[in-house]
Amino acid sequence: MTSRFARRLDGMKASEIRELLKITQRPEVISFGGGLPAPELFPIEDLKVVMADVLDREGPRALQYSTTEGHPGLREAIARRLNSQLGTAFEASDILITSGSQQGLDLTGKVFLDDDDEVLCESPTYLGAINAFRAYRPRFVEVPTDDDGMVPAELERSLAGCRRPKLLYVVPNFQNPSGRTWSLERRHAVLDAAARHGLVVIEDDPYGQLCYEGTTPPALASLPGGATVIYLGTFSKIFCPGMRVGWLVAPREIYEKCALVKQGADLHTSTLAQYQILAYLERFDIDASVARICKVYRRRRDAMLRALESEFPPGVSWTRPRGGLFLWATLPEGVSAREALVRALERNVAFVPGGSFFPNGGHENTLRLNFSNMPEERIAEGIARLGAVLRELCAAPAG
Amino acid sequence: MTSRFARRLDGMKASEIRELLKITQRPEVISFGGGLPAPELFPIEDLKVVMADVLDREGPRALQYSTTEGHPGLREAIARRLNSQLGTAFEASDILITSGSQQGLDLTGKVFLDDDDEVLCESPTYLGAINAFRAYRPRFVEVPTDDDGMVPAELERSLAGCRRPKLLYVVPNFQNPSGRTWSLERRHAVLDAAARHGLVVIEDDPYGQLCYEGTTPPALASLPGGATVIYLGTFSKIFCPGMRVGWLVAPREIYEKCALVKQGADLHTSTLAQYQILAYLERFDIDASVARICKVYRRRRDAMLRALESEFPPGVSWTRPRGGLFLWATLPEGVSAREALVRALERNVAFVPGGSFFPNGGHENTLRLNFSNMPEERIAEGIARLGAVLRELCAAPAG
Repeated sequence: MTSRFARRLDGMKASEIRELLKITQRPEVISFGGGLPAPELFPIEDLKVVMADVLDREGPRALQYSTTEGHPGLREAIARRLNSQLGTAFEASDILITSGSQQGLDLTGKVFLDDDDEVLCESPTYLGAINAFRAYRPRFVEVPTDDDGMVPAELERSLAGCRRPKLLYVVPNFQNPSGRTWSLERRHAVLDAAARHGLVVIEDDPYGQLCYEGTTPPALASLPGGATVIYLGTFSKIFCPGMRVGWLVAPREIYEKCALVKQGADLHTSTLAQYQILAYLERFDIDASVARICKVYRRRRDAMLRALESEFPPGVSWTRPRGGLFLWATLPEGVSAREALVRALERNVAFVPGGSFFPNGGHENTLRLNFSNMPEERIAEGIARLGAVLRELCAAPAG
Repeated sequence: MTSRFARRLDGMKASEIRELLKITQRPEVISFGGGLPAPELFPIEDLKVVMADVLDREGPRALQYSTTEGHPGLREAIARRLNSQLGTAFEASDILITSGSQQGLDLTGKVFLDDDDEVLCESPTYLGAINAFRAYRPRFVEVPTDDDGMVPAELERSLAGCRRPKLLYVVPNFQNPSGRTWSLERRHAVLDAAARHGLVVIEDDPYGQLCYEGTTPPALASLPGGATVIYLGTFSKIFCPGMRVGWLVAPREIYEKCALVKQGADLHTSTLAQYQILAYLERFDIDASVARICKVYRRRRDAMLRALESEFPPGVSWTRPRGGLFLWATLPEGVSAREALVRALERNVAFVPGGSFFPNGGHENTLRLNFSNMPEERIAEGIARLGAVLRELCAAPAG
């Protein structure tokens, strides 16, 4: 019997991992599983001021329908901020306000992807991007990636096997899930390949400002070379995620298609949230707030690295991220991170097995650890418990 | 040269009408063009209380990521409210919180529609639904509709010409754009046909509570007969649209597919907005607020009907809606509503030509008038100016 649902649903299924992780909402669980910002750093008191302020000053306008493109003042503020941080020359009219940067992924997938078009991505890549693009039935081509980012020679090799390469999806800064950051050289080389092959690059940059060592390298969108780059940003990691406000920057023709498609998807992003964020940016110092976030997350990252060093058994390796929220560990070949999760949950510790981050499967011996959402003592305690699980598993004969 | 965009973009283009109507944001324009609720009725003072309250009581939780399905308390409150209004027996777990009911249209399109599947709809139908579904490349089959709603015999005739009928999209109460409401008999007959032909019914009900005469007939979702019905609702017309919170109610298997697809589209709807609306529902009397809205809109509808009676020339007919925001006028055959719009804009009056509401084109002699967003004197003045335009056009020889 044929399904009554669209064919695109065939490849999409609820993650069993997600079901497993639902229990991590219990307070006794030490969870390295989500990608949650630390809620104790949300600027609650500032927001109270801003909320009263917006309703006093703007009144009903802040509650009415508004344009699909977004609030002109907020678009202006975002363009100015990006230009000062990235050295770009964006204008307000280049910024499309989205319902989180997750929506930017859905919109670009919808605008570009026909069945069997190819999406090239890092291996591993962001799970939410896999989910968003999968609805448009592309083929995912995973490009091997090392500690300096996507490997240009591997990208060329992958492209040679492609029939209709369309999008190159990348997270060059403090990547989710690996924590890796691309070198400047790699950025130039990949952009060059994208331009030569006519790929549209989607640069997803939720973490660029969460830098704990040195400086964040230049954004792809700021580099010369003639590649078409769509830049996605969000307030989720530098302000708060619950308001669901992000943005997309794209060349004019692509911008217009994205706006057209957004109109059909949700008309526009919350008017009120846009006014509130604009008022916050005008009235408070978001950079000072980001600096506070970085200080806390840096300490948590350090606590996790220290704990891994002392608790994880030989044969397990991990990345040393210079920013962001995540770190990536690789277990010995044949040791299952899924099995480790089942045992870790018995000891009230959670994480995400890495297999989910590979659109074409495999890599079941990898795992992602989030360090932003737990205080240092809990990180130490959780990694100690997880280390015990891994020592057990690594000691047992495989099979 | 083939486009670099997905094929689905071929059928989607920015509306020139929309461009024309951009000028209606000038304060001197009397606009019957949008579908805006009256902003002076938004409960601003209550919202100020609610906003401070939510941050005090819930703290950072209201700003954090949350589940795709939505806030359990809000889902519970919506289920309870629907059950008391519609006589349904929904549970909280049947309610999926969406980013406005527009997103409900996008999600159902994505879940059900393959290329060339058929969507049956009223003729005319809601423009936003055409835009949402069109991204999934269906064939639209317009079913003739009269003052009592969709005509069952015409639905059967339309189905006989279908190859893969999938969805039946309807707005049975105070329809946008026509203002029409289906009789109970039609509801039963159409549901019966849907059940026999295995159609999934999407019942879009943004206006059901805005009833100015008699009572709103039973929702399709509340009637027996075995048809599969997805019910879409929204806070946009009974509270405020700028927060973008709506809901979708569907049988379990469909619900799960919609939630899966929503996760890829925007992860979840604003946590903060959900907490705020729940707090509003708990603390204030939304039914009293809806009653105030109805009182004002009823007077505006009456003002418009009076003005039409005295100002519109013979040969023009219009509907007499018992609720909602819109009224629908038909000009004599051969008189162009688009031409009327150009001339009306010169006199600072705006409306939407009706052609846009027919997915397969035609009907250029129709127009939609919104009466919710202007005070009575402005309605009288605007209709007088529009009447003058129509008298000119109807007097001129066609061509």
